[in-house]
Amino acid sequence: MQKLVFGLNRPDDTDFEAFREYWLEEHAPIAAELPGLRRYTVSFPDDPDRSQYDGLAELWFDDRAALDAALASEAGEATATDLANFAGDDDMLQLVVEEHVVVE
Amino acid sequence: MQKLVFGLNRPDDTDFEAFREYWLEEHAPIAAELPGLRRYTVSFPDDPDRSQYDGLAELWFDDRAALDAALASEAGEATATDLANFAGDDDMLQLVVEEHVVVE
Repeated sequence: MQKLVFGLNRPDDTDFEAFREYWLEEHAPIAAELPGLRRYTVSFPDDPDRSQYDGLAELWFDDRAALDAALASEAGEATATDLANFAGDDDMLQLVVEEHVVVE
Repeated sequence: MQKLVFGLNRPDDTDFEAFREYWLEEHAPIAAELPGLRRYTVSFPDDPDRSQYDGLAELWFDDRAALDAALASEAGEATATDLANFAGDDDMLQLVVEEHVVVE
């Protein structure tokens, strides 16, 4: 399994609750349409003022080909486009990793 | 559930395979002894030279009190001490987040 990890920050003029609500209620349903998406979580800090990121998304795919196909799909384009509606455009974390479960 | 997320980089004089092997075979068993640990994963990029972090750890606890107790425990101290045996000491990512499952 390949996992795509995003860390996002809100723009300076957006408060955390509005950012969190938009992500969960508007953005997540768009990203959930990605083809081949096996699992999808969104995580938020309790204390955003002391956190390096305001939120973290994790998206699992069977392999790198499935991940690349998802990002290149119409749903992938819609997901990327929607980022501009709630996330700031600097300091983004983006990783592609393979996950090992140590404690299940 | 509260999730502790670490992003680590290897020191300049360590190659990626040695870093990855130490983490999985030496460090992970130490961290796996943390009291109250519900789930624990370690993730690595396929292409560390193009990744912001060389590895990511995620540790789930029932709540913030359980997380704090784990870090303050003897196992928590051993885990933190062992970081110096394989990880570089700058650019570390450390987040405490609450996870929402969007797609199971």
